Amino acid sequence: MNIPFTKMHGLGNSYIFVDLFKFSLAEDTLSDLAQTVSDQNFGIGSDGLILIHPSEVAEVGMRIFNKDGSEGKNCGNGLRCVAKYAYEEELINQKKFAIETKGGNVTAEVHGDRACIDQVTVDMGEPILERSRIPMQGDHASKVVAEPFEIEGEKMSVTAVSMGNPHAVFFVDQMDNAPLYELGPIISNDKRFPEGVNVEFIEKVNDEELHFRVWERGSGVTQACGTGACAAVVAATLNQALNQDKEITVHLAGGDLYITWASDGRVWMRGKAETTIAGTFYWER
Amino acid sequence: MNIPFTKMHGLGNSYIFVDLFKFSLAEDTLSDLAQTVSDQNFGIGSDGLILIHPSEVAEVGMRIFNKDGSEGKNCGNGLRCVAKYAYEEELINQKKFAIETKGGNVTAEVHGDRACIDQVTVDMGEPILERSRIPMQGDHASKVVAEPFEIEGEKMSVTAVSMGNPHAVFFVDQMDNAPLYELGPIISNDKRFPEGVNVEFIEKVNDEELHFRVWERGSGVTQACGTGACAAVVAATLNQALNQDKEITVHLAGGDLYITWASDGRVWMRGKAETTIAGTFYWER
Repeated sequence: MNIPFTKMHGLGNSYIFVDLFKFSLAEDTLSDLAQTVSDQNFGIGSDGLILIHPSEVAEVGMRIFNKDGSEGKNCGNGLRCVAKYAYEEELINQKKFAIETKGGNVTAEVHGDRACIDQVTVDMGEPILERSRIPMQGDHASKVVAEPFEIEGEKMSVTAVSMGNPHAVFFVDQMDNAPLYELGPIISNDKRFPEGVNVEFIEKVNDEELHFRVWERGSGVTQACGTGACAAVVAATLNQALNQDKEITVHLAGGDLYITWASDGRVWMRGKAETTIAGTFYWER
Repeated sequence: MNIPFTKMHGLGNSYIFVDLFKFSLAEDTLSDLAQTVSDQNFGIGSDGLILIHPSEVAEVGMRIFNKDGSEGKNCGNGLRCVAKYAYEEELINQKKFAIETKGGNVTAEVHGDRACIDQVTVDMGEPILERSRIPMQGDHASKVVAEPFEIEGEKMSVTAVSMGNPHAVFFVDQMDNAPLYELGPIISNDKRFPEGVNVEFIEKVNDEELHFRVWERGSGVTQACGTGACAAVVAATLNQALNQDKEITVHLAGGDLYITWASDGRVWMRGKAETTIAGTFYWER
């Protein structure tokens, strides 16, 4: 089967996109296809497969399949790419529109010309701060903000935020000293986080900029984590007196994201989406 | 720059191919381009870049650039792909032809129809058996065949073969018991091999088949190693009384290779070459 595809990435988080407005795939092939295209040796090489499809509840729909073939709910970096593609390929005509995902509808806004959208803003929803919904164990106050946290003899201070997935945020004075590789995997699997946790180390540069490094639950150190950047800005606003409604630049290893925690409670993420390949994948199945 | 490319692999050893009969690239961009296309996050994802170019000394030429941007001399898996491409794309009309490489001219022969070449045989040259040219330290006999080799308290027996790069071959009764991960990295860096060595464990199935696993120098365990499969057949012929001039099937993790050590001394390798993508790479430089 010859499958037309586009490869795009957001800050190095890369996916293979198939446009189901123009091409059909059988449901029972999707998990296999995701595993095959993700494989750099025998396929293309990516973090997964995203299908862009017609929707009855939004302007356009997306389904995301992980490298292991399982279906996911959502992905901030992938959403930006879908928005860019949908507008550039004239699947939609307005610049602000809804995208259907398995995690619900998401609003996206593209910035730039029809021929080249390079920035996209997406609605990342409201952060969850209640301890039991992170989830995190403990019986102190409901919110986990600058709470003492001791691990491996180190006395630290944690702020916990869920953006649909759990984040443990730690502030450091100098990013070079952050114990990312030493404590990242230990905290990520600590029993105080019964579903595991993404671990972020944040250095506040000034009132408009944060440095960011992440140990992702199940993946280890990665170039970028969109929900983590949102959690970092929420945590910094609660801890470090950043202003709500102001766009904060988060410097990740893979590039910058621009995050706004609006006073209505919603978090908006703006960032790049880039197309690297358009082509045909020859699938022998 | 919009660069037309093809992605092909031999047993999972994958490269991005650019056809310089149809497209031009500046010399000072090649190292950067190789690093970019090899990167799964920001580029395509491969083991490197191969340029297919007109030649004055052969029917077609190839240059190979590794993932790190350095230029290599040759690659058996890449050669099979170049031969397939050159014939299918009608760069040449005969089925047996010479390919220029930085390591000298190599003869290749394609098998199948013009529309779909799936097997290619390439001339891998003559094995080098003299100890000093492997290179391997020691002052016993010139050839290293079933020589006692003690490491980490294990008493083993080694046969050393160079196919342009050094190989240490060890025979095992059961591949499941081969100490690939335990001793592979230790032997590969052992001081008896001053330039390092690729480490192969071989189980003889019968007079026509070998099982093969490899720890590649500098890379670790890989799916396939063409020169290693050749070295294994040479070593098995010297140790295990295989017949010269007979094609031996070598079962690698990534698939099978068919190796013949001809009585004129040359080693021929036959195997698959597969095309996975044809497309355009959008390079922002």
